[in-house]
Amino acid sequence: MKTILILGGGKSSIFLIDFLADTCLPKERKLILADLNLDQAKSKLKNKPNTEAIPLDIENENERKKLIARADIVVSMLPAIMHPIVAKDCLLLGKHFFSASYESESMKSLKSEIESKGLLFLNECGLDPGIDHMSAMKIIHDAKSKGEKILSFKSYCGGLLAPFSEDNPWKYKFTWNPKNVVLAGQGTSRFIEKGDLKFVPYQQVFKRIENIHFDRLGEFDGYPNRDSLSYRKVYGLEEIQTMLRGTLRRAGYCKAWDVFVQLGLTDDSFQLEMPEGSNLRQFLNAFLPYNKDLSVEEKLAEAIPDMDFPTFEKIQWLGFFGNRELPLTKGSPAAILQAILEEDWALNPEDKDMIVMQHLFEIKTTEGIKKVSSSLVVFGNDSIYTAMAKTVGLPLAIAIDLFMDKKINITGLHIPVIPEIYNPILTKLEEFGIKFMEKG
Amino acid sequence: MKTILILGGGKSSIFLIDFLADTCLPKERKLILADLNLDQAKSKLKNKPNTEAIPLDIENENERKKLIARADIVVSMLPAIMHPIVAKDCLLLGKHFFSASYESESMKSLKSEIESKGLLFLNECGLDPGIDHMSAMKIIHDAKSKGEKILSFKSYCGGLLAPFSEDNPWKYKFTWNPKNVVLAGQGTSRFIEKGDLKFVPYQQVFKRIENIHFDRLGEFDGYPNRDSLSYRKVYGLEEIQTMLRGTLRRAGYCKAWDVFVQLGLTDDSFQLEMPEGSNLRQFLNAFLPYNKDLSVEEKLAEAIPDMDFPTFEKIQWLGFFGNRELPLTKGSPAAILQAILEEDWALNPEDKDMIVMQHLFEIKTTEGIKKVSSSLVVFGNDSIYTAMAKTVGLPLAIAIDLFMDKKINITGLHIPVIPEIYNPILTKLEEFGIKFMEKG
Repeated sequence: MKTILILGGGKSSIFLIDFLADTCLPKERKLILADLNLDQAKSKLKNKPNTEAIPLDIENENERKKLIARADIVVSMLPAIMHPIVAKDCLLLGKHFFSASYESESMKSLKSEIESKGLLFLNECGLDPGIDHMSAMKIIHDAKSKGEKILSFKSYCGGLLAPFSEDNPWKYKFTWNPKNVVLAGQGTSRFIEKGDLKFVPYQQVFKRIENIHFDRLGEFDGYPNRDSLSYRKVYGLEEIQTMLRGTLRRAGYCKAWDVFVQLGLTDDSFQLEMPEGSNLRQFLNAFLPYNKDLSVEEKLAEAIPDMDFPTFEKIQWLGFFGNRELPLTKGSPAAILQAILEEDWALNPEDKDMIVMQHLFEIKTTEGIKKVSSSLVVFGNDSIYTAMAKTVGLPLAIAIDLFMDKKINITGLHIPVIPEIYNPILTKLEEFGIKFMEKG
Repeated sequence: MKTILILGGGKSSIFLIDFLADTCLPKERKLILADLNLDQAKSKLKNKPNTEAIPLDIENENERKKLIARADIVVSMLPAIMHPIVAKDCLLLGKHFFSASYESESMKSLKSEIESKGLLFLNECGLDPGIDHMSAMKIIHDAKSKGEKILSFKSYCGGLLAPFSEDNPWKYKFTWNPKNVVLAGQGTSRFIEKGDLKFVPYQQVFKRIENIHFDRLGEFDGYPNRDSLSYRKVYGLEEIQTMLRGTLRRAGYCKAWDVFVQLGLTDDSFQLEMPEGSNLRQFLNAFLPYNKDLSVEEKLAEAIPDMDFPTFEKIQWLGFFGNRELPLTKGSPAAILQAILEEDWALNPEDKDMIVMQHLFEIKTTEGIKKVSSSLVVFGNDSIYTAMAKTVGLPLAIAIDLFMDKKINITGLHIPVIPEIYNPILTKLEEFGIKFMEKG
C-alpha cells in the first residue's frame, strides 16, 4: 500500500485532503495528515478509512524525517519558507514531492539530483501558480501546433468575494493571508508591452491598472504583478512583444488602496508607536501634513488630489475618520493597518468567496490577428469549502492521484507547463466545475 | 611626541590634514596619514615636517593594528561601515578615537569599556552631524539656563553650490557621495509637529517640503530627514512639541527630483537590463505607461499631473528627452540614474560649493514666544578646498587639537552636545569664517 503524507492541514488544504482521503479505500492507499494541531488534523480526516492524523512540529528534524521515511509521496502545504527543507528531506529519503508554491532558486538547485534519483518534484500546481500555467499553456501549445504566433499574453487572477457577499464598499474581505494582501504590490513590477520593457514602482502600481471585464460579473481592476518578464522563458515565449501577469480587485479598490500606499500606511520597514488609546483618525492623521486650520478629511483631500467620493467612502467605511480605538498601537504601519482591516474585512460564516482568472491573448494567424479571452470563475461553497481552497487543492490532489495511477509518467523537477501533466489535470478539474470559458 | 593617525585621505579630509599637519612642528606632534593610495596621501601632506604617509589596505587586520599601535589618537575618515572595526582596535590597543560619522549601535555597545579604559571616543564631530549639534546645543543650553522652554526646533542643512556655480536649472552638482544623493529620502521620515507624530514615506517626502529662506541667497526647499524623533533625547528635549531635522536643496529641486521618485528611477532594489545602445529617452520611457498615441513628453505630463515648466526644463536639461546613449545599461534604476547624473552634475575645476545650515527655534520666554533663527553659510575655495571638506574636517581637527592640548578634558563615548566640547570648538571655528548669524 502506497502512502501519501500531507504536511500542514491549514485553511487551503480541505479539498486536497477530501479528494485524496476518498481515494484511499478504493485505490488501496494510506493518507497521513501531519499538523501541529492534532485535533484540527483529525477533524479534517473525518475518520475516513486508511487515514491517520499525526501531530508534528515541522521544525523537529528527527520527527519530520521519521515521518517522511514512512511515505511514498510528500505534499507540502507549509509556509513557502519550509518547502526547500522538506524537499531536501525527500531527496535524501527518495520520496516524491508536490507543492502549490513557486519553484524557488533553492528548489532549482536540486534539479540534477532529483533527476538522477528518478523522483518527481512537482511545484506550482495550485491556482496561481498552477491553473494559470496549465490553462495558458494549453492555448499556447495549441496555437503553436497550428503554426500561429502569440503576440500578446496578459493573465490576471484574483481571490475575491462572490457578488452575494460583496456587502462593503471595497467589495473585499480577507480570503487569503492578510499580510500578503496588505503588502501586495511592493517592489517594482516588470513587464513588456509592445516590445518595450516597462518598470512600475510601488507608488505607481495601483495607478497603472487595466480594466478587466467578466461576463455577468462586471468590472475589475487589474494591476501588474512583480515579475512578468521571467515567464517569457517559462512559457517558451522568449520573442513575445507583450507579456503581463497581474492581480484582480473589484473596480475602484485600487484607487482607494493607493491612498494607503501614497500616505505610507502600508510601510513594513520600520516600527512606530502611537500613544496608548489612539484611534483610527489619529493614526491616519500621523501620515498627513500638519495644518492647524484643516480637519483630517480636508488634509486627506489635499494630500490626495484625485480623491473622489467612492474612494472617500471606502476609507470612511473602514472607520478612519472616527474614534474607534486602534487594535494595535505598536508595530509597522502595515502591521497596524492589517490589524484594523482584520476587524473590518473578516469573513462571516455565511460568506462565499470567488476566484476569477482571465487570460487575454493576441495571436497572429494566417487570417490575421485573433483576440482570445479565456475566463474562469469559481465560487466557494462556504467559508470552509472556499473557492480558494478548491482551486489550490484540487489541481495538486489530481496531480498526485494521476501520478500514483501512473497516468502521469514523468520524473524530474517540473511545473505543470507540459501537456502530459496539464492535459489530464485540466480534464479532471472540469468535473469539479473548474472550467475556462473561451471567447475568440 | 604624541602621534595622530588619520585613516583615509579622501576628498573631505583636506582641511583636517592641513590643520593637524600644521600643528606638528610647533606642538611637537607626529601625523601619520594612511591611505590605500600612497601618492595621494603624500601629496596631501605636502612634505610638512613630522608627517608621514603610509600605504594601507584597511581590510588587512595585521597591518591596521600595527599602525594603530603606533598612534595615540586615531581619526577615522573611512566609510561608515569601517568605524566599528577601527573603534574596536582602538579599544583593544588603548587609543583615543575620533570620527565625523554617526554614533552607531555597535559603537554604543563599547561605551562602558571605553569609560573603564579612560579613553575618549568622539563621534559626530563633523558638519551634519557635528556643527549642527554644537550650534543647536549652544542655543538650547543658553535658553534652558535662562529658564526658557524650547517649544519648536527645526534644523536644516544642505551641501550645495555657491550661487557663482549654479549654472544649471537644478542649481545642483555632486559635491558629495553621488549614491547618497540618488538614494536620499528613502525609508520613512519621522518627526513630531505640534505634539503630533508625523510619518512621511519616500513617495511623499519630496512633496512635504518647507520653504526655507536665507538672507542674500534666497529660497530653498527643506525636506525631512529619516529620523528626527531620536534627537529629542540626544538634545535633552524629550517634551518638545515640534522637532524636525531636514535637508536643503535649491527651490524647485525637490519637485523635479520627485518625478524620478514617482516613476521609480531611484529604485535600488532590483536589477534591470536595457538593450545595448539604449538612450536616455528610452530609459525614461520604460517607466512610463504604454500609449502608442503619445510622445514620451506627453506620457510624462500625464503620469505627473502637476508637472510645470521649471520641472520639465530640469528633466530636459539632463537629456531625458534626447538620444544620448545611456552610460550604463545594466544595474538598478538608481545606479543607471546615478551614472547619467555623474555626467551631468560633475563639478568643473572652477566650481565652488556651499554649505548652508539653518536652525529655527520657538522659545517660550517670560515675555512670550520668541522666534530665533540661526544660519550658517560657508563657501568653498575651489573644487579641492570645498566648503564640505572645510565644515566636515575643521571641527574634527579642532577637537583633536584641543584634546591634545588638554583644553578638552573628558573621557568616555561622546558626541559634541556638551559645553566643554562644543564651546571651544565653536569659538575656534569662527576664526575660519564658520560662524552662525542669529536673528531673533
